Amino acid sequence: MRLDFFIAFWVVAVAAMAQQNVGFREGSVVSPQINEDNSVTFRLRADAAGHVTVIGDWAANGGRGEMTRNADGVWTYTTPVLPSEMYTYRLDVDGVVNLDPLNPFTRRDVGNVYSVFYIGGGCGDYYQVHDVPHGDVVTTWYHSDSAGADRRLSVYLPPCYGKEGRKYPVLYLLHGSGGDETAWLDLGHVARIMDNLIARGEAEPMIVVMPNGNFSKQAAPGETPENLAFRPVMTNMLTDYKNGAYEMAFTEIIGFIDNKYSTIPDRQHRAIAGLSMGGFHSLYIALNYPGWFDYVGLFSAGLMTDLNTDREAYRDEDAKLARLSELGCELFWIGIGKDDFLYEANTDFRKRLDSMGFDYIYHESDRGHIWANWRQYLLLFVPQLFNPKQS
Amino acid sequence: MRLDFFIAFWVVAVAAMAQQNVGFREGSVVSPQINEDNSVTFRLRADAAGHVTVIGDWAANGGRGEMTRNADGVWTYTTPVLPSEMYTYRLDVDGVVNLDPLNPFTRRDVGNVYSVFYIGGGCGDYYQVHDVPHGDVVTTWYHSDSAGADRRLSVYLPPCYGKEGRKYPVLYLLHGSGGDETAWLDLGHVARIMDNLIARGEAEPMIVVMPNGNFSKQAAPGETPENLAFRPVMTNMLTDYKNGAYEMAFTEIIGFIDNKYSTIPDRQHRAIAGLSMGGFHSLYIALNYPGWFDYVGLFSAGLMTDLNTDREAYRDEDAKLARLSELGCELFWIGIGKDDFLYEANTDFRKRLDSMGFDYIYHESDRGHIWANWRQYLLLFVPQLFNPKQS
Repeated sequence: MRLDFFIAFWVVAVAAMAQQNVGFREGSVVSPQINEDNSVTFRLRADAAGHVTVIGDWAANGGRGEMTRNADGVWTYTTPVLPSEMYTYRLDVDGVVNLDPLNPFTRRDVGNVYSVFYIGGGCGDYYQVHDVPHGDVVTTWYHSDSAGADRRLSVYLPPCYGKEGRKYPVLYLLHGSGGDETAWLDLGHVARIMDNLIARGEAEPMIVVMPNGNFSKQAAPGETPENLAFRPVMTNMLTDYKNGAYEMAFTEIIGFIDNKYSTIPDRQHRAIAGLSMGGFHSLYIALNYPGWFDYVGLFSAGLMTDLNTDREAYRDEDAKLARLSELGCELFWIGIGKDDFLYEANTDFRKRLDSMGFDYIYHESDRGHIWANWRQYLLLFVPQLFNPKQS
Repeated sequence: MRLDFFIAFWVVAVAAMAQQNVGFREGSVVSPQINEDNSVTFRLRADAAGHVTVIGDWAANGGRGEMTRNADGVWTYTTPVLPSEMYTYRLDVDGVVNLDPLNPFTRRDVGNVYSVFYIGGGCGDYYQVHDVPHGDVVTTWYHSDSAGADRRLSVYLPPCYGKEGRKYPVLYLLHGSGGDETAWLDLGHVARIMDNLIARGEAEPMIVVMPNGNFSKQAAPGETPENLAFRPVMTNMLTDYKNGAYEMAFTEIIGFIDNKYSTIPDRQHRAIAGLSMGGFHSLYIALNYPGWFDYVGLFSAGLMTDLNTDREAYRDEDAKLARLSELGCELFWIGIGKDDFLYEANTDFRKRLDSMGFDYIYHESDRGHIWANWRQYLLLFVPQLFNPKQS
């Protein structure tokens, strides 16, 4: 009778504790399933479907897999063996592209929501949680006089922050077009990367600041007074691009951070890096404020040649480059993928730097304009910051 | 030629700034669409589908709507007029229940992900962002000696925090079974509710602390060293229930908060409230630490009668109730919906309180065990905290 009792208790307990939206889902259908060899099996029950496809961001099979239907009506697909990474994917059921409904773990990227999973054993280990000391993550708002608005930003504080009255260096980390102050946290896994790098002794404890680079917006989509009336799609995101206002007003953010947190407010302890549009922003912030940053990182930078030189931020670019070159940077780091559509723009830019004897470190990776590269560039960039070997 | 130029620029700019996952989606199909009369229209392009249903959490039509297919192959459904609230919903396409793929705004509730929207003009206004001063939201970790682990919690700091060396009262706000330290923020909209209440002068500035009540877990699903191997379903969440360890160890959390933040660390400036299992936890924390909380809130509390009295937390309950009654609370608030499956358990509990002359405030709402009620209870509870009229 013990089993009966247990079941009766269990049913009552589940009913009594149930919240509004309950997913039981302990049936036999599991998705995704990470197999021992690091292939991944996806499953979907879709009795009426005629055609189901997995669409993911792994290189193998172009990230696509045709699911096949077994006798139980469950659609299945197993990927080739995948390298260690974080992956995003969706399922296309007869033309409706949507989440894997059996996977509760998701991330929004610009205007779409994706299911996610991790493959460990390499860089993917840095993107997952381990039992190491964890830093704080703060969502806060600064007032921008030039924007005439309160604007939201994300801050990572290292695990030891606030414990010894110590002051910290700061990395400013900028998102790409279509992104916002949540992108480097949610898709870049900055907090986990920093926790893990610091715990392994591979990076200095530092503060990481992730502002919102869409200067006419106060915050991420859904987090502004427009609420859900503003939908994040790429075409909504271009109004601020090449405007120059964000770059020139960046010292407002630095002033806010140096005032609010225990920072070391000098050039030797300040870095700026960004992906795509954020790489473009990082370059022009560093060029206009050359005395502020000793470390600059351009990740798949969205470099442009048709800039409006009426804008202060983009005026006298050669002279500004020469000045930064003369001043020198402890690290000026450029990373890009062989297949990136910005590869040529970055090659042209490097030629310009070469012609003027500008010192930089160049990293060329496989693949293109993808988060896997930006996370991996961050893993390469952060350990080089703030002279860890000399401190 | 100006239009040609504009289009050429636009195409180049979009391509150049594109991130990995691009959603253009400026087609004619929009979903959800909030209509002027506060009805809501959902749309889905699903050419091959035979049957599409909206499943939401509004009361009208039981939250269900059969979509119909128009000549363009777009499925459509319009709800009746909805009262002001935040709503969650999913679409059932031939038995596959999933997000609205045209809506980028989602929330996870236990093991499922839902699309969301808001209807303004009432309480829903408190759940949305307005151009008012915003407090900080912090994710931090405390060390629990009794759990032998670092554990994650969420903290809301009021907009004026840290600006005048001022100290603040603290509300400890506990989630239900299946929830975690993100639930009150993501589904309860605590940060927005607090920002809006404080801006309107309807609540005292206060710190709100949202711990994780699953004592054997360090953090929310996906945020522990188990990473995605632990799937949030209700049956995974019951191991800690009625264990009593979390309640007895709650002073560890208070000690951490009083040490880390500028609090007023006394009974008159400390409140505890929770929903469902969190109401159960709040009651037993208040009973075991009667000198610590002058304000107690039980929201649809998961009150149980079959408690293991070998556990210190649940021993001598009558004596503990009598002691709290004698001490008195500035506010002991009980809220429950008429249709809640815990209505009878709460009625029985109130009879017990009545029989011993225990003072409390009772609020009975419509509907059942749903987030709409918990948000509304919070809106009623918070303005009564910390004697705003006398301060």
